[in-house]
Amino acid sequence: MPNPTAAMLVIGDEILSGRTRDANMYYLANELTLHGIDLKEVRVVSDDPDAIVSAVNGLRGSYDQVFTSGGIGPTHDDITADNIAAAFGVSIDVRDDARAILQAHYDARGAELNAPRLRMARIPDGALLIENPVSAAPGFSLGNVHVMAGVPSIFQAMVANVLPGLPGGAPVVSEALRLERPESEIAELLGGLAKTHPDLSMGSYPFHTDDGHGTNIVIRGSDPQAVASAIQELRDLLAKASV
Amino acid sequence: MPNPTAAMLVIGDEILSGRTRDANMYYLANELTLHGIDLKEVRVVSDDPDAIVSAVNGLRGSYDQVFTSGGIGPTHDDITADNIAAAFGVSIDVRDDARAILQAHYDARGAELNAPRLRMARIPDGALLIENPVSAAPGFSLGNVHVMAGVPSIFQAMVANVLPGLPGGAPVVSEALRLERPESEIAELLGGLAKTHPDLSMGSYPFHTDDGHGTNIVIRGSDPQAVASAIQELRDLLAKASV
Repeated sequence: MPNPTAAMLVIGDEILSGRTRDANMYYLANELTLHGIDLKEVRVVSDDPDAIVSAVNGLRGSYDQVFTSGGIGPTHDDITADNIAAAFGVSIDVRDDARAILQAHYDARGAELNAPRLRMARIPDGALLIENPVSAAPGFSLGNVHVMAGVPSIFQAMVANVLPGLPGGAPVVSEALRLERPESEIAELLGGLAKTHPDLSMGSYPFHTDDGHGTNIVIRGSDPQAVASAIQELRDLLAKASV
Repeated sequence: MPNPTAAMLVIGDEILSGRTRDANMYYLANELTLHGIDLKEVRVVSDDPDAIVSAVNGLRGSYDQVFTSGGIGPTHDDITADNIAAAFGVSIDVRDDARAILQAHYDARGAELNAPRLRMARIPDGALLIENPVSAAPGFSLGNVHVMAGVPSIFQAMVANVLPGLPGGAPVVSEALRLERPESEIAELLGGLAKTHPDLSMGSYPFHTDDGHGTNIVIRGSDPQAVASAIQELRDLLAKASV
């Protein structure tokens, strides 16, 4: 049975303008791989209602799970929750359970739950809250869409809370072989090997050093033994070819 | 007049599996900002023909320019060029000008232009070559789609070759203000300021230190004076509010 599929939606002008370097995509990609969910697509869109609604609706119909990051804070540019609600056609308002979490958080700090902070308790109807152990303001899951903060420490904590509850498949394992030869010298051999192992994915990643060109070959699959034996087969083929 | 728009398409299983951390998005975002082109969307898709064709056709119709990275090397998993041709409905084959570039490169190194290397001379009909000063194998522009390598040093060199030939707009400038206060304390004030300056974009980015919560406020726009005066207005509002 193939693994469940996923997409990620990164929301934020700061990524597209180059001001901030996204850190969440790389993190989520690794966590999903370990959980046996295949990340198939990532989109980055700006803080624009139409862009968010159209990306959410495009992705949630095409993949088993969708993970979003960014845009759920207290400021005017945090418009993710409202547009997730719009994408699903459900209403959104301050919800009592989310308000209680924020009230307790700010009470404990002697701070006021002012209007901007209360905005973070706006949760679409029917959504399940995702706990935020860092700064209280929750994320939420609505259907197969999991809405999380953009701040990496909060994003990571939310992923850790959501992922165990989602159906996973076989974790993808990979083995790599580093060759001190340009990829154009081993391309034919690798292409032949890939054809005889349609269940495995074989990638070839060139690198440059002061000593010249090299290639990392990576073989990926969900059966560790099949991956190991394909790597051995590649070693044998390379040894034979260089005689 | 609004700036020209752009999208980026990153092609590669190695990014989606978390094996490789993409470095090209951040680079391109900054270069486009400096050139006055607004990056509106980024997509990352796997080495899959349907995914590439559908993303290319979706993006090239929606934005003025599209930049792709990845999948133009000599191995079996390098399928970008063929699928760009498919997306445009044009034919693709080894082209004499690209072959001559590769022939000269390998001749100079006493190496053979073997079949995998010759694959890198497959260029869609009607495309313009993009020079590759690092390893010779060219990228290409077809219509408004610019197809470049995924290796960061090559990607960067190709961007440097393509960008000066594209129409740009007003470079976006930004100024930032670092506040040692949580964003929920300044959200209302910032939201009010944003409403009175619809031509500027105002972002608020929380951070956490051992000393507590802080916020970076970033104001962006194409008119440097308008940006500077809005930052000053923000400073004044903050000073007045903390009296």
